[in-house]
Amino acid sequence: MKVDYTELKKVAIDLLAERGVTLEDIAKITLEIQSQYYDDITLEYCLEHVNHVLSKREVINAVLTGINLDIMAEQGHIKEPLRSILMNDYSLYGIDEVLAYSIINVYGSIGLTNYGYVDKLKVGILKDINDKIKYHERCNTFLDDIVGAIAAAAAGRIAHSKN
Amino acid sequence: MKVDYTELKKVAIDLLAERGVTLEDIAKITLEIQSQYYDDITLEYCLEHVNHVLSKREVINAVLTGINLDIMAEQGHIKEPLRSILMNDYSLYGIDEVLAYSIINVYGSIGLTNYGYVDKLKVGILKDINDKIKYHERCNTFLDDIVGAIAAAAAGRIAHSKN
Amino acid sequence: MKVDYTELKKVAIDLLAERGVTLEDIAKITLEIQSQYYDDITLEYCLEHVNHVLSKREVINAVLTGINLDIMAEQGHIKEPLRSILMNDYSLYGIDEVLAYSIINVYGSIGLTNYGYVDKLKVGILKDINDKIKYHERCNTFLDDIVGAIAAAAAGRIAHSKN
Amino acid sequence: MKVDYTELKKVAIDLLAERGVTLEDIAKITLEIQSQYYDDITLEYCLEHVNHVLSKREVINAVLTGINLDIMAEQGHIKEPLRSILMNDYSLYGIDEVLAYSIINVYGSIGLTNYGYVDKLKVGILKDINDKIKYHERCNTFLDDIVGAIAAAAAGRIAHSKN
Repeated sequence: MKVDYTELKKVAIDLLAERGVTLEDIAKITLEIQSQYYDDITLEYCLEHVNHVLSKREVINAVLTGINLDIMAEQGHIKEPLRSILMNDYSLYGIDEVLAYSIINVYGSIGLTNYGYVDKLKVGILKDINDKIKYHERCNTFLDDIVGAIAAAAAGRIAHSKN
Repeated sequence: MKVDYTELKKVAIDLLAERGVTLEDIAKITLEIQSQYYDDITLEYCLEHVNHVLSKREVINAVLTGINLDIMAEQGHIKEPLRSILMNDYSLYGIDEVLAYSIINVYGSIGLTNYGYVDKLKVGILKDINDKIKYHERCNTFLDDIVGAIAAAAAGRIAHSKN
Repeated sequence: MKVDYTELKKVAIDLLAERGVTLEDIAKITLEIQSQYYDDITLEYCLEHVNHVLSKREVINAVLTGINLDIMAEQGHIKEPLRSILMNDYSLYGIDEVLAYSIINVYGSIGLTNYGYVDKLKVGILKDINDKIKYHERCNTFLDDIVGAIAAAAAGRIAHSKN
Repeated sequence: MKVDYTELKKVAIDLLAERGVTLEDIAKITLEIQSQYYDDITLEYCLEHVNHVLSKREVINAVLTGINLDIMAEQGHIKEPLRSILMNDYSLYGIDEVLAYSIINVYGSIGLTNYGYVDKLKVGILKDINDKIKYHERCNTFLDDIVGAIAAAAAGRIAHSKN
């Protein structure tokens, strides 16, 4: 089997858009993380790094898998009891963090603390995503961790390239 | 949300059975790993440790998620191109190994090499599971890694308790 | 080789104390994380969970390894260029986060975000530990990540037991 | 602090050589893994990929840290009881596998099973390294896992580039 990852990257970006998240939304989170360290950093620069993160196969596969799980939970294709666990973003589920970790790791462990930070403080669009979970409008169990992880990985990539 | 993990453990065991894998099948893999180190080890003893591994929430959540992904791929609920990736057990997908790693890790990193070993040599029922992938009868992309990981984690648990 | 982990736990606690960190200091970080979720939580309760985290072999081994690396860097036993990397807590080093992750993982991936949060905001004693790095009084490259990881793991353990 | 990773890579390669391991030794393990899948693969091709793996910062940092720990254990700079744990390659220690995992992960989770396989079967130079542990001539607790992990990561890199 041959898989075209340039094609797959587009699918991943479309899936994110379908769930209400643009690459610019993610880059804004990266900008907020990085503006603590660098004065002159721009949104365009962050966007470029977010784009590179989304070219990595491991990241693309995590995005496709996580968001498809969210969608199938919403549509009722996932059997109970897993469906309820996902619909309620049950805090001890943990597989969402496991996927997030596989994204962060692409640029080494230094993305780890950035991920925890943005996830906890619900930086930028992460607040909107989580509000939708709270009011049961959407199943975003994987989406919020995926978005936070991509933003954190992009911040890690910037730290590497600044060295 | 309150989740009853005693109930959820039964669901996980039923899901494994539905995909053709009993806890005894898993214990046989553990026995093969451990018989290299200990002469007097029995299948019953291994089964007991497999049972303990399956009581852990992280393990139960990984089993429910992985097997549900296999089933939904088979049933056509997962959108392309992810469906084809799963149906073909595409070797660069990697999310199956990510879930496996979250299972192994429950008893520390010492399960890591056991997992790689049984996965590579297709010990015991892992051969049957993989033959079904090869002949396209089933989507077992997650199942084989999950079964190998539980067996390896049980071997890790035995090593800890023997100390 | 037989290793007595009850003995080893004491060694780990003594090493932490030698570096200026008591279990109570760690429990205070856990308390700050958890007080956002539970009103009635006490320092004693957090301390009990920190104690349990420190009974785990994986945690003990990470503590012994990390703090010994800090000490040997200070004493000049580690060869250059690694010594300078450690003495300066070089931000792209990453092995400190790798050890931290092995601690957090003992109670599953849910400790991940707590770790990132306390590490970023330098909660409690983490501020003192980092000030000592900044003013080059001490090599605390591993210590701060280890302390944050134990506190986060204890918070994860509390979340599990409250369910 | 600025760190020159081209320089650091040379230090890592020198440290491996000092412990009796050349990049060609590592490439031979990669060749054995990959010759099961590809007929036409050469040692030169594997060596090229091993070289790329060793250019990654995360890998370089793991090599420097692990081998320095082995050396300091041998020289008696590490305090007891950690020293004895390392000198005996105590099987429940686990931090060696933690470092190995951080190396493998650089090319995604697909290197995981290759690592377990070569570690278990002691492919190529891994046999010599382990014999030296057994006969207490050397402390190679980290060296064997590091070498196996680099070989497995190189195999993962080849799999990615062949796609």
